[in-house]
Amino acid sequence: MTTRQIKVYQDLMGENDRWAEQTRKLLAKHRIYMVNLIGSPGCGKTALLERLADMLHDTLRFAVLEGDIETTNDAQRLARKNIVVSQLLTKGSCHLEAKLVHYALRDLPLTELDLVIVENVGNLVCPAEFDIGEHRKIAMLSVTEGEDKPLKYPLLFREAKAAVVSKIDLLPHLTFDLDACVANIRRINSEFPLFQLSSTSGAGVTEFIDWLCAVPGR
Amino acid sequence: MTTRQIKVYQDLMGENDRWAEQTRKLLAKHRIYMVNLIGSPGCGKTALLERLADMLHDTLRFAVLEGDIETTNDAQRLARKNIVVSQLLTKGSCHLEAKLVHYALRDLPLTELDLVIVENVGNLVCPAEFDIGEHRKIAMLSVTEGEDKPLKYPLLFREAKAAVVSKIDLLPHLTFDLDACVANIRRINSEFPLFQLSSTSGAGVTEFIDWLCAVPGR
Repeated sequence: MTTRQIKVYQDLMGENDRWAEQTRKLLAKHRIYMVNLIGSPGCGKTALLERLADMLHDTLRFAVLEGDIETTNDAQRLARKNIVVSQLLTKGSCHLEAKLVHYALRDLPLTELDLVIVENVGNLVCPAEFDIGEHRKIAMLSVTEGEDKPLKYPLLFREAKAAVVSKIDLLPHLTFDLDACVANIRRINSEFPLFQLSSTSGAGVTEFIDWLCAVPGR
Repeated sequence: MTTRQIKVYQDLMGENDRWAEQTRKLLAKHRIYMVNLIGSPGCGKTALLERLADMLHDTLRFAVLEGDIETTNDAQRLARKNIVVSQLLTKGSCHLEAKLVHYALRDLPLTELDLVIVENVGNLVCPAEFDIGEHRKIAMLSVTEGEDKPLKYPLLFREAKAAVVSKIDLLPHLTFDLDACVANIRRINSEFPLFQLSSTSGAGVTEFIDWLCAVPGR
């Protein structure tokens, strides 16, 4: 009786982590910093990137990897702002994984970049579970979502290295308690920088840009 | 050489579907209608249920199964409105599955109910993939999220039997194009009823309640 060879299937997260590691090596080689922007659908991720395009152009050369389940709407919005952008379509999946990000990253003009911003699929839950080779995850929450959300979706706020509370221009029209929201975020993560901004009015965006530009190792 | 028994692990979705079927049988036995309310974090699901508690009490006897990853905040909000409510904690998972729903349903006072509303985990993506034994999925989208979201997250709008566009009281403060949003929803699902409402002002809630009360088979 011959011994049949047994096929071993590595767990998928193991494969994901290997691609993430490849991405980190590629980023290090080109001295590029990469952040992974995560938040609910409609929390204002793309609007913030549009605002960054207006304010960052002379400071930092950046590109965007735009994650979506379907459509290229967001990449088209950013292309209109002259941002170097590629669209990553997950075709049904609720988050980006490292392999797709790696392939898209390799095709960017890496020698001309300081920063890559990955806009993840709109989802406050699942993307936080996946390492895509980024240096920092950034948690984004809009004031229209309610001040309790950091407690209800704590993983992202635990994993992130910064938080952005967006759409503060809408505060006069809401019952949202900004102090309670900040306190809730601090209950999950007492250390990281926390930005309050409006991409519509521009308020607070400079502070976020200063943090992006002051990242370690650059 | 004895033949060893081979363990067969049924695929998880198969198991999910069997629990969903058990739930449908239980609901039929008690002539209870069950809907599954799905939308992003902060789109106003709990606020709508609070409003329903104020407006439905003499019309329809209902209970809520409240899905969250962590915290019992939402169940506490509803309990303050004297709603019969149980909290379902997914402990990290981004959606409700049929088994947990079934166990919670069995413990409700079924002989005293006409309607069970399941508030799913705040997530515009994953909950749409899971049959929890409900009669209808309801897709919910707030006007602060942007009119393009039905195209970017089409599965839910395909699976749902009704859509709710919420927070219309905020329209004067936003650049949101309501007609474009409705057109986008209609591109995904041209047939189903579409409600535009505000749980804050109460506008449009009566129409939604009329639809809830007129469900087939009751």
